Amino acid sequence: MIRAKLLSAQGEQRSGALELVEEWRASDGAFMWLDIEGEVTSDIRALLVSLGCSELAITDSVRLRHPPKIEAFSDNTFVLFRGIARIDDDLNLTPQQVGLWVGDNYLISVHRGLSVSINHFWQEPAENASLANPAELALRLLHFASGRYLDKILEFEDTLGELEDALLTGHSDSVMRELVGYRSRLRKLRRIFNYHHQMTTQLLHDGTPHLGCGDHDEANHHLRRDLYDRCERLFSLCNMYYEICGDLVEGYISLTSHQLNNTMKVLTIITAIFVPLGFLAGLYGMNFEHMPELHFRYGYFFILFLMISIAGGMLWLFRRIRWL
Amino acid sequence: MIRAKLLSAQGEQRSGALELVEEWRASDGAFMWLDIEGEVTSDIRALLVSLGCSELAITDSVRLRHPPKIEAFSDNTFVLFRGIARIDDDLNLTPQQVGLWVGDNYLISVHRGLSVSINHFWQEPAENASLANPAELALRLLHFASGRYLDKILEFEDTLGELEDALLTGHSDSVMRELVGYRSRLRKLRRIFNYHHQMTTQLLHDGTPHLGCGDHDEANHHLRRDLYDRCERLFSLCNMYYEICGDLVEGYISLTSHQLNNTMKVLTIITAIFVPLGFLAGLYGMNFEHMPELHFRYGYFFILFLMISIAGGMLWLFRRIRWL
Amino acid sequence: MIRAKLLSAQGEQRSGALELVEEWRASDGAFMWLDIEGEVTSDIRALLVSLGCSELAITDSVRLRHPPKIEAFSDNTFVLFRGIARIDDDLNLTPQQVGLWVGDNYLISVHRGLSVSINHFWQEPAENASLANPAELALRLLHFASGRYLDKILEFEDTLGELEDALLTGHSDSVMRELVGYRSRLRKLRRIFNYHHQMTTQLLHDGTPHLGCGDHDEANHHLRRDLYDRCERLFSLCNMYYEICGDLVEGYISLTSHQLNNTMKVLTIITAIFVPLGFLAGLYGMNFEHMPELHFRYGYFFILFLMISIAGGMLWLFRRIRWL
Amino acid sequence: MIRAKLLSAQGEQRSGALELVEEWRASDGAFMWLDIEGEVTSDIRALLVSLGCSELAITDSVRLRHPPKIEAFSDNTFVLFRGIARIDDDLNLTPQQVGLWVGDNYLISVHRGLSVSINHFWQEPAENASLANPAELALRLLHFASGRYLDKILEFEDTLGELEDALLTGHSDSVMRELVGYRSRLRKLRRIFNYHHQMTTQLLHDGTPHLGCGDHDEANHHLRRDLYDRCERLFSLCNMYYEICGDLVEGYISLTSHQLNNTMKVLTIITAIFVPLGFLAGLYGMNFEHMPELHFRYGYFFILFLMISIAGGMLWLFRRIRWL
Amino acid sequence: MIRAKLLSAQGEQRSGALELVEEWRASDGAFMWLDIEGEVTSDIRALLVSLGCSELAITDSVRLRHPPKIEAFSDNTFVLFRGIARIDDDLNLTPQQVGLWVGDNYLISVHRGLSVSINHFWQEPAENASLANPAELALRLLHFASGRYLDKILEFEDTLGELEDALLTGHSDSVMRELVGYRSRLRKLRRIFNYHHQMTTQLLHDGTPHLGCGDHDEANHHLRRDLYDRCERLFSLCNMYYEICGDLVEGYISLTSHQLNNTMKVLTIITAIFVPLGFLAGLYGMNFEHMPELHFRYGYFFILFLMISIAGGMLWLFRRIRWL
Ligand SMILES: [Mg+2]
Ligand SMILES: [Mg+2]
Ligand SMILES: [Mg+2]
Ligand SMILES: [Mg+2]
Ligand SMILES: [Mg+2]
Ligand SMILES: [Mg+2]
Ligand SMILES: [Mg+2]
Ligand SMILES: [Mg+2]
Ligand SMILES: [Mg+2]
Ligand SMILES: [Mg+2]
Ligand SMILES: [Mg+2]
Ligand SMILES: [Mg+2]
Ligand SMILES: [Mg+2]
Ligand SMILES: [Mg+2]
Ligand SMILES: [Mg+2]
Ligand SMILES: [Mg+2]
Ligand SMILES: [Mg+2]
Ligand SMILES: [Mg+2]
Ligand SMILES: [Mg+2]
Ligand SMILES: [Mg+2]
Ligand SMILES: [Mg+2]
Ligand SMILES: [Mg+2]
Ligand SMILES: [Mg+2]
Ligand SMILES: [Mg+2]
Ligand SMILES: [Mg+2]
Ligand SMILES: [Mg+2]
Ligand SMILES: [Mg+2]
Ligand SMILES: [Mg+2]
Ligand SMILES: [Mg+2]
Ligand SMILES: [Mg+2]
Repeated sequence: MIRAKLLSAQGEQRSGALELVEEWRASDGAFMWLDIEGEVTSDIRALLVSLGCSELAITDSVRLRHPPKIEAFSDNTFVLFRGIARIDDDLNLTPQQVGLWVGDNYLISVHRGLSVSINHFWQEPAENASLANPAELALRLLHFASGRYLDKILEFEDTLGELEDALLTGHSDSVMRELVGYRSRLRKLRRIFNYHHQMTTQLLHDGTPHLGCGDHDEANHHLRRDLYDRCERLFSLCNMYYEICGDLVEGYISLTSHQLNNTMKVLTIITAIFVPLGFLAGLYGMNFEHMPELHFRYGYFFILFLMISIAGGMLWLFRRIRWL
Repeated sequence: MIRAKLLSAQGEQRSGALELVEEWRASDGAFMWLDIEGEVTSDIRALLVSLGCSELAITDSVRLRHPPKIEAFSDNTFVLFRGIARIDDDLNLTPQQVGLWVGDNYLISVHRGLSVSINHFWQEPAENASLANPAELALRLLHFASGRYLDKILEFEDTLGELEDALLTGHSDSVMRELVGYRSRLRKLRRIFNYHHQMTTQLLHDGTPHLGCGDHDEANHHLRRDLYDRCERLFSLCNMYYEICGDLVEGYISLTSHQLNNTMKVLTIITAIFVPLGFLAGLYGMNFEHMPELHFRYGYFFILFLMISIAGGMLWLFRRIRWL
Repeated sequence: MIRAKLLSAQGEQRSGALELVEEWRASDGAFMWLDIEGEVTSDIRALLVSLGCSELAITDSVRLRHPPKIEAFSDNTFVLFRGIARIDDDLNLTPQQVGLWVGDNYLISVHRGLSVSINHFWQEPAENASLANPAELALRLLHFASGRYLDKILEFEDTLGELEDALLTGHSDSVMRELVGYRSRLRKLRRIFNYHHQMTTQLLHDGTPHLGCGDHDEANHHLRRDLYDRCERLFSLCNMYYEICGDLVEGYISLTSHQLNNTMKVLTIITAIFVPLGFLAGLYGMNFEHMPELHFRYGYFFILFLMISIAGGMLWLFRRIRWL
Repeated sequence: MIRAKLLSAQGEQRSGALELVEEWRASDGAFMWLDIEGEVTSDIRALLVSLGCSELAITDSVRLRHPPKIEAFSDNTFVLFRGIARIDDDLNLTPQQVGLWVGDNYLISVHRGLSVSINHFWQEPAENASLANPAELALRLLHFASGRYLDKILEFEDTLGELEDALLTGHSDSVMRELVGYRSRLRKLRRIFNYHHQMTTQLLHDGTPHLGCGDHDEANHHLRRDLYDRCERLFSLCNMYYEICGDLVEGYISLTSHQLNNTMKVLTIITAIFVPLGFLAGLYGMNFEHMPELHFRYGYFFILFLMISIAGGMLWLFRRIRWL
Repeated sequence: MIRAKLLSAQGEQRSGALELVEEWRASDGAFMWLDIEGEVTSDIRALLVSLGCSELAITDSVRLRHPPKIEAFSDNTFVLFRGIARIDDDLNLTPQQVGLWVGDNYLISVHRGLSVSINHFWQEPAENASLANPAELALRLLHFASGRYLDKILEFEDTLGELEDALLTGHSDSVMRELVGYRSRLRKLRRIFNYHHQMTTQLLHDGTPHLGCGDHDEANHHLRRDLYDRCERLFSLCNMYYEICGDLVEGYISLTSHQLNNTMKVLTIITAIFVPLGFLAGLYGMNFEHMPELHFRYGYFFILFLMISIAGGMLWLFRRIRWL
């Protein structure tokens, strides 16, 4: 699907399809947003090249999974961003890669499937839209798309709290498995956020000719800073949650193993006490003809007393040396 | 609650409410501190914008939790600091976010709840106050607010010492749980201190037009250095305590497991010695008709002697190969 | 084997052997690609020196294993790249080191064995080949060679998924060994990719006179960026897979040990319950003459009942204190 | 205690008390070293301010524990160094904080207690002393003070070697505790050395106006390099010893646990062999009326033979599958 | 031992002792290499100072163990390198510290004992030697000395492979100890290589006036790059082998402990099966007068059958729940 929006030099805004591109080429001082959803056919590729997009950048944008990046060309700046197609509460992400070309008087967006963030800005009423400033529009778009991650990540803080409580009570082994799963999904998210963090750090400090490279006197500077703040926060939070997941699992295993060892010790003490007693009983169960003790009047009671003493003595000793 | 302080060009200082803002706008060479506590209504937002605060910065300052930051604008510098609303001895922190706009002749502070640090400087007698120098006032405010963290962190050093001792004596498992809790709270504090550390590092090296960016000849430079020192120390100490907590837990678990293994060994040796003896006793407890040993004159005594020899021999052997 | 390609100043392209070198020397404005496969004899060494290759670079290129590098000389830029001679599905790599000298109007490639990447570009039809631009040719060559790694690494993602599933089901110990093997091979690959990553980072930011050092207005800049993207991605993916392998092994061992401990506990509980019962049975198996209980009418049944009570009581107790 | 040394413009050197300060103020071209030991009273504070010391720096210097730092002011450079008041062979450090102000023609030193390093230079004969060059004097002082740490750290190398040997022989658990103690003391030392390392790195690369900031043509440059080398070495050695301590403890616990597991296995094998044999013996100890085997002529001998076979067979099997 | 080589302005080369120093001082345009082996007496110290060596550098060069460094002075560049006096196949290193002063027309080398690298270049035939270019001579010397480490490190790769195989077969505990030893020796080597790596990185990027600081147009630049490559490779390889040693030990312990746990489980299952059977046997070994089962016709056979059923049932159950 190809759709376009045109803001004429007189400030009038219209939506349409490919015909607006020609109109934009003809007019002077007009702005255009061209949005391409779905497969990039060779026709579309030719169109993009004719609009000044680099072959290399087009190739990057149609790859299924290419690391996010920002690259400045002489006519425009190319931004490749990994947005969200779908993310569930377990942080399973289906990414939606969006390629943006930001020129002086146009914005081109390319994405394989439906993009929530693109649609959000496409439906903005004409008076709010920043079509006359493609850089601002692109930065606000990236800010909005990052915000969708942020909502999920902040929600996860509560999940993490619940998991932490669950670990200490009920069916902990399944909780542990869940944590291991979250951890591996956070690792993958972290890699994406790391790319976005690096992109926006570079964008804040150096900038590009089409997204702005000025200092604090430039309006776009503060939009870039706003985007940077969000991406930095995403990376930092994701990293912290990743580490917390690992620590929780490790801590749970340590603690469990510690308790289990104690349990084993007590069980082994039970065995260690009764085995010698059992031996003694076995001893007087032998059938030798000549075993004088068997004929003693109080032999049995003496042995019973001896056994109780041994058991008591061992218990006292184990307590003494702090094994119990 | 909105309150304001005005230092007129003649050096006279007055406190009041919104009316002072108008007076400050009218006069030339006057200084103002405007303090806003509580919700930021749309009226207040309009007021802030009219005073030169950026929309983006206002949005940041009203977020419940935004990473601390310093951002230079052409009219002022915006500082977002995460102070202490309440912190208990277990390092559970309720943060109090404070937003500051530092201009050439005004300081604006915005905070949702009561801020101890703001009040401390608000109540300063007129002769000590540095109202005529908003940058100095802001830096001293941040220095004071960091100092409240520092007191708690230095107190914690003693707590840590006590926990270390407690580990080696009494009810160690509960101590261990406490350490795990401290560790996770220190991790969260460390993230805050990391932001403050980065902010103040940037502030020291690059500065901003309104907080000063000069070298060692500038008075503010040394205030910025002082603030940096404190934030760096907080981060460094917090990091060290975090690592120590982890090491103590790890060390305790290692040591306990080591001792437990030894205990298990001794218990198992007891079993391993008596099981063969028990077998021997069982052997002569069998009821076969033809067991010549049973009729020997000294059979029983020989077997007793054999058993003692076996037990003694095993003990000697275990000692020899250093299992005991 | 020595072979050469010549693009004359008139745009005519020919393949041949050493004789083309002389022709190239004679003509003005001609381009040459000289490809040397196999041992570098002293004749070849002399030829290379006469073409402006540095002695030190030649020595590096003939070493069996030299860390990959890029080095600028006044006449050319020397690139040493570790390509793939053969790589199997288990990521066992036989490297194929390729040395490239990129000059203004020539490209020289040196490799000990057959190089798939070199052959791919050698067989390109004349109209596609970028012989007139040696820098572009070299960059495309390196990009292609890196792509061969990338294919393998992306395939490995599936392998990793299968291994992860296999861990949770069948013959897990062999899966574990396999993971350990992959991990050590990934470590070695990571070292190579680290070198390539560093090389291309330096190439992107600083460049060299013969591979281009311009900004985004220069055509080669975007080829260098493309190469950088690929090498960075290789390094980043390889690093992530390396860490995932380690985490899987660690996690499997932790989990197994955790389950095993539980198993041991149950087995030990069985023992701990029957050992005291066995002792009781042994007690009344003793042959003392005077054991009054033995003559009681319901002694046996009472003891049976006592044993069942003890067993039941212990089970109830172990459940109560959550050992079962 | 306040004491001063004056080097007059004529090159004559005298020691004394406060009166020399006035003399120094009066004369032109004279150099002074002012040393203040003990509490900084408000009188002394006023004196320091009058000599050009910054209020902020004085406050830092009187804090009980402030991170070491170097700060350049327009009149002087302030150095805060954490020296040794006392350090025992177990690396327990009682620090002695020393504050130095280095001006063009004066050096001021402030320390709470007796400082060995200060005294060492105070007692230097007049002909060796570098009073005419306060920067040189300060750098030599810091170099000497670091040397006192270095002696201790180098001594510790031997201690570490002894501990390593002791681990492999006698009473290892106490050695382990000792190592854990050393490790935690080394961590604290490392934090100090890290500060000194950072200070001297900054001093070497950027310098300060009063301690010199020239390149290799400046005499002080090499003194700064010398100081840097020592502090870097301290940090690097301390870090290495810290890691070695950790590795030794970890290694010892791993090894011990490994050996212990083997011991447990052998003990358990003993039990596992005798328990089935004991069962067999118990079987024929039963008192059933009708047990035909009991009446066989060679029943007992057959059972004995069976038992030996079982024991032998199990031993052979365990060996075969490499459990023994 | 002091020896010298002189290359006169006429290109004639001679060897000798101290007298050549005087000749070199007298002549114009002559080059000298002065080599000092053994103790640095005060005479030699005076000689070195008279040749322009800094007191601080001389002190560094005579220390038994000083961290390797490069320091530029106005007259010369001082290099302190930690070479090999002796290294065995187990990587036990006896270092040989070499101090070099590189001037415009002289090279001075100082070393306590015999230096293989120095001798190698001293014996070079006059036509190969680069005496006329002290910087080149020094760089080639350092390159050669690093090469001696590289040979050992590359040899170690084979050793490591053998150790890895040995771990999986025979007497593994001794192999493990060997690996721990190698690891600690590699850690010490790594610290040396880290210094050399840092030295040569600095030398490559910044250079020094006497070792060259030019770009790729300067001949020495490529010698410095060659030296850097070697030192970087040493550091990188050493680091990788260090980590591999650690991983092998860790992996072996994990695997062993995993197998041992399984062994223990089987042994414990044997015990857990026979203990209940033994109890049953003990039960009917009791001597109560009234035990009706004892008088049943097929009591014994029924109990035998029961025992077999219990054992079979337990085995089936353990299999079912995957404990076997
Ligand atoms: Mg990453
Ligand atoms: Mg990271
Ligand atoms: Mg960050
Ligand atoms: Mg962070
Ligand atoms: Mg980590
Ligand atoms: Mg780390
Ligand atoms: Mg952090
Ligand atoms: Mg950190
Ligand atoms: Mg720090
Ligand atoms: Mg730190
Ligand atoms: Mg680290
Ligand atoms: Mg690495
Ligand atoms: Mg790396
Ligand atoms: Mg990366
Ligand atoms: Mg990386
Ligand atoms: Mg990482
Ligand atoms: Mg790390
Ligand atoms: Mg540190
Ligand atoms: Mg550090
Ligand atoms: Mg270092
Ligand atoms: Mg270091
Ligand atoms: Mg560390
Ligand atoms: Mg680390
Ligand atoms: Mg190191
Ligand atoms: Mg290092
Ligand atoms: Mg490296
Ligand atoms: Mg590396
Ligand atoms: Mg390292
Ligand atoms: Mg490390
Ligand atoms: Mg690391």
